[in-house]
Amino acid sequence: MDTKSLNPMFTARSVVLIGASSNPGKWGYVMLKNLINGGFTGNIYPVNPEAEELLGKKVYKTLEDVPETPDLAIIVVPPKAVLASVQACTDKGIKAAVCITAGFAELGEEGSRLQDEMVRTARAKGMVMVGPNCNGIMSPWEKLYVDFPSFHVPPGSIALVCQSGGIVDGLARKAMIKGLGCSLCVASGNEADLHMEDYLAYLADDLRTSVILCYIEGFKDAERFYRIVREVTKKKPVVAYKAGKTQAGAKAAMSHTASIAGSDEVFEGICKQTGILRAQNLHQLFNLGTAFMNQPLPKGQRIGIITAGGGWGVMAADECVSLGLDMAKLSDETIKKLDAFLPAWWNRGNPVDLVAGSGPDDVLRVVEMVLASPDVDGVIYIGLMPALKFTREELLHRGATGAAWGDALIRASVEVVRHLRSLAGKYDKPVVVASEHLISSAEQEVRTLHAIGQSGNVCYEMPYEAAEVMAALVSYGKWVNAGN
Amino acid sequence: MDTKSLNPMFTARSVVLIGASSNPGKWGYVMLKNLINGGFTGNIYPVNPEAEELLGKKVYKTLEDVPETPDLAIIVVPPKAVLASVQACTDKGIKAAVCITAGFAELGEEGSRLQDEMVRTARAKGMVMVGPNCNGIMSPWEKLYVDFPSFHVPPGSIALVCQSGGIVDGLARKAMIKGLGCSLCVASGNEADLHMEDYLAYLADDLRTSVILCYIEGFKDAERFYRIVREVTKKKPVVAYKAGKTQAGAKAAMSHTASIAGSDEVFEGICKQTGILRAQNLHQLFNLGTAFMNQPLPKGQRIGIITAGGGWGVMAADECVSLGLDMAKLSDETIKKLDAFLPAWWNRGNPVDLVAGSGPDDVLRVVEMVLASPDVDGVIYIGLMPALKFTREELLHRGATGAAWGDALIRASVEVVRHLRSLAGKYDKPVVVASEHLISSAEQEVRTLHAIGQSGNVCYEMPYEAAEVMAALVSYGKWVNAGN
Repeated sequence: MDTKSLNPMFTARSVVLIGASSNPGKWGYVMLKNLINGGFTGNIYPVNPEAEELLGKKVYKTLEDVPETPDLAIIVVPPKAVLASVQACTDKGIKAAVCITAGFAELGEEGSRLQDEMVRTARAKGMVMVGPNCNGIMSPWEKLYVDFPSFHVPPGSIALVCQSGGIVDGLARKAMIKGLGCSLCVASGNEADLHMEDYLAYLADDLRTSVILCYIEGFKDAERFYRIVREVTKKKPVVAYKAGKTQAGAKAAMSHTASIAGSDEVFEGICKQTGILRAQNLHQLFNLGTAFMNQPLPKGQRIGIITAGGGWGVMAADECVSLGLDMAKLSDETIKKLDAFLPAWWNRGNPVDLVAGSGPDDVLRVVEMVLASPDVDGVIYIGLMPALKFTREELLHRGATGAAWGDALIRASVEVVRHLRSLAGKYDKPVVVASEHLISSAEQEVRTLHAIGQSGNVCYEMPYEAAEVMAALVSYGKWVNAGN
Repeated sequence: MDTKSLNPMFTARSVVLIGASSNPGKWGYVMLKNLINGGFTGNIYPVNPEAEELLGKKVYKTLEDVPETPDLAIIVVPPKAVLASVQACTDKGIKAAVCITAGFAELGEEGSRLQDEMVRTARAKGMVMVGPNCNGIMSPWEKLYVDFPSFHVPPGSIALVCQSGGIVDGLARKAMIKGLGCSLCVASGNEADLHMEDYLAYLADDLRTSVILCYIEGFKDAERFYRIVREVTKKKPVVAYKAGKTQAGAKAAMSHTASIAGSDEVFEGICKQTGILRAQNLHQLFNLGTAFMNQPLPKGQRIGIITAGGGWGVMAADECVSLGLDMAKLSDETIKKLDAFLPAWWNRGNPVDLVAGSGPDDVLRVVEMVLASPDVDGVIYIGLMPALKFTREELLHRGATGAAWGDALIRASVEVVRHLRSLAGKYDKPVVVASEHLISSAEQEVRTLHAIGQSGNVCYEMPYEAAEVMAALVSYGKWVNAGN
C-alpha cells in the first residue's frame, strides 16, 4: 500500500459527516461540534435526511447532494446502514473514510461478514477506511478533530495509534495537560481495512512526528506488521504497549475489537527483532514516548546521577543498574573539578549527592561537569529545587499563596529544565530530569509541568521513571547505531 | 524496648528547639516557623545564646534556663555541638529528642564514634532519640510538625517511616494533595538510637494508624527487625519499599544514611516470612498504602472487573492474572440478572463491558450485582464517567469552564466513589476504583481527587494500579486468614 493514500484522511480539506444529528446525546452531534470547535478551516458537510441546519452548517439530505467530492467521510449511521454509506462514498469518489459505528466483527460471525463486505466495497474503488468500531482520528496540525471527547490536543510531535478509543483519548489528554502536543492520533478500532502497520508506515515519513506510541490488542496480519515496522524503526522510535498478554486479557480483547491477541512470547520476539521499545503500562508508554521528543541518543550506557536528595539518588542508581545501565565511574579529574564547587564532605562518587549549601549556579555547573566528562554517556538529574534561581524581587513573595510567587516558581522551574536541555544539546548527550514539587500546591504543580511542556521539555516525577526513560534512550541508541 | 517510651516524642505537650535561629535560611529558623504555623498548642521554647525573641516566642540562652522540663527536644546545632546538647537534654530530664543535624556515621569512622557517644549518653538516662541526619517528625493529630518543608499534612490514618527525609516529605505531600492525611511521619535518618522496627512496634498499637508505609535503605539489626515486624503485621498491614537493592544503590545508601543495605534476597525472604507487602516503587508504595485505609479484606482472589472502556477492561484483566489473581467466572444466574440491565449485545463475560447506553443507575446496579455474586471476592471498577449523575440544573452548565459545572463534576465523582465504598461495606468485599478524568482540565482533576480523598476514599488512575492494589488486599487478606 502506498502511504500517500492516507493523505486525504490526515490532511483532508473537506469533510462530510454521514449521520450528523441534532441530538446532543448522539455521536453524530458531538463529532460535528468537536470538528467545528477544533477550528477546521476546510468545508464541513453534515448529512442527515431530516435536518436543514446543524450548529450553523447547512445540512444535506444525502451524500449525493453534497456539492463537491469531500476528501474525508465520517460515518456514524447505525450498523445496518453503514454498508450503504460506504457504497455511497465510493460512488461519490471519496478516497478516505472513518467508520465510527460499532457492531461488526467484535460481535461475531454476522458482524464479520458485513465488515468484510464493507472492506471489499471500499477497496474496489481505492477508498481507505479507519475502523469500524472506533472513535476517530485527530490531526492537530490540520485542526482536524474527528473524535468524541470535547478537548482538542494541540499540535506536537508525538503520534498515537491505538486499538482503543478510550486509550488514544487518555494519552492525548495526558500530552495536553503536560503542555505537549500530538502530530496525529488514530483510534484504529477493528482495523477492517487499515491496520496498525499502515499508520506506522505513514508516520515513518511524516516530518511532524518524532516518535510513535502504540496501544496494541492484536494483529490482523502479524507477518506484515513485522515486515513494515522493521523499516519504521530505522526512521523513528516506536514504543508499544501490548494488551491481551494473558488468556483473560486476550478474551476481553476479542470482544472489544475482535483482535486475536497472539502469544505474548511472539510479541516479545517481534519487539526484539524490530527494535520496538516495549512499555509495561500506559504511564510508561507515555513517559518513554516523551523521551524521544527532543533528547539526543546516548552513545553508550554509562550514566551519571546528580541529586540533592540522598534517597532519590539511591533509588535512581538501583533502577539504572536493574535496567542494565552502568553507573559511570567518575575519573579523578572530574572529582577534582567537582571538589572546587562542592562542600568538603560531599560523597565523591556517583550518584553525586549535592548536599546542602550549593547555590543554583553551582548545581548546574556540577551537572555540566559530569555531563562533559568522557566517562559519562548521559545524566539523570533529580530534584529541581536546589537549582531554582529567583530574583530578589521574587523572593519577597516567597511562600505566599498569591500569583507572584507561583509565577516565579514556574519561571524558575522552566528555566532549569531549559538550561539542562541546552547542556544536553551542547554535549550531545541526554539529560533526563525528574523532580517532586514539594513547595508547590497540587494546582501549582500542574501549572509548572504544563509550562515545562510548553517549553518543549519534560520533567518526570520519580527516579524510576527517569531511569526507565534513560534505558529506552540507550536501547534505541544501540538499535540505531547497530545500523538498523 | 517499651513502646510507651515513644509517647513523649509523638504526643509531646512541650518542645524545646536547641539551635533556634533568626536566619530564615537556617533549619533552626524554618523548623521553629513550621512548628508555630502548624498550630502546636503546647509550650515552645527556642534556645539560642544570642537572641531575645524569635517569631514572637521568648528565647532562652541555654536549655537550663527553660522553666520546665519539655517533653521533646529538637537539636539543630552544628555537629560538634550535638553531643553537649544531648548531655544537656538528659541533665534536664528530657525523655525524647529529634536530632536533625547531619555529619555523623554517614561520613565515616569519626562520625560513627561521635554518634555512638551520643547514643550512650541518651540511653544512660532513658532518653529516646530520632536521627541524627534526618529532617524530623510530624504528628498531625497533635499538630506537632517538626519538619523542614513548610506544609502541614492533615491528620489521617497512614503512618510513614522513612530512612530519607525527602521521601517522607514527598509521600506526606502526596497524601495531602489527594485529600488524605497521616497519623505519623518519621524521617528516621541514621537510626543511631531508635530503629525502623521501634517505630513499627509503636505504630502497631497506635489506634489512629491503619497502615504503615516504610522506605528502607538498610537495617541496623535485621534479626530484631524481623522479630518485631512479624508481630506488627498481625495487627496491621506494613508496606515497604527497599532501596539499595543493587550494589550501586547500596553504595549510595551507605553514604546517605550509613545504611548497610543487605542483600535483596534476604529482604525478599523477610517480607515473605513476616507478611510485609513489598512495593516496587514509591508510586506503588503510596497506592498500596491507601488501599488499606478503608477497604474490607477479600476472602478469596476471584475478581470481577466492570468498565465502560473496552481497552481498560483488557488491561485490568491482564494485570490481575499477571499478579496471580483469578478472573471470576460469572454464574448463569448473575449473567441473567445483568441481561435485564445491559443492552442485548453486551459481552456476557468478565470483564463486564458496559458498552454505551447504560445510565448511571444501571452502572451502579451492575456493580452491585457482580459484587453480590457468591462467585466474586472483590470488584475493580474502571471509569467514573458513565456512573456520574447530574441534576437537570447542573446539566445546564455542562462543558462550561465556570465553577458551576466544575463543582457539579466534583460532587458527582465523589458521589460515585462513595456509593461504591458503601457497596464494599454492604457486601464486605473490596471495590477498587480507577478512572481517567477525560472531561476535566488538569486543575479540575486535582480538585476532584482531593475531594474524593476528603470523603475518605481513593480513585486510582490506571487499571494496573487498581490490579496491584487488589493483589495487595488479597495478599494481606490471606496472611491474616492464615492465622498470622
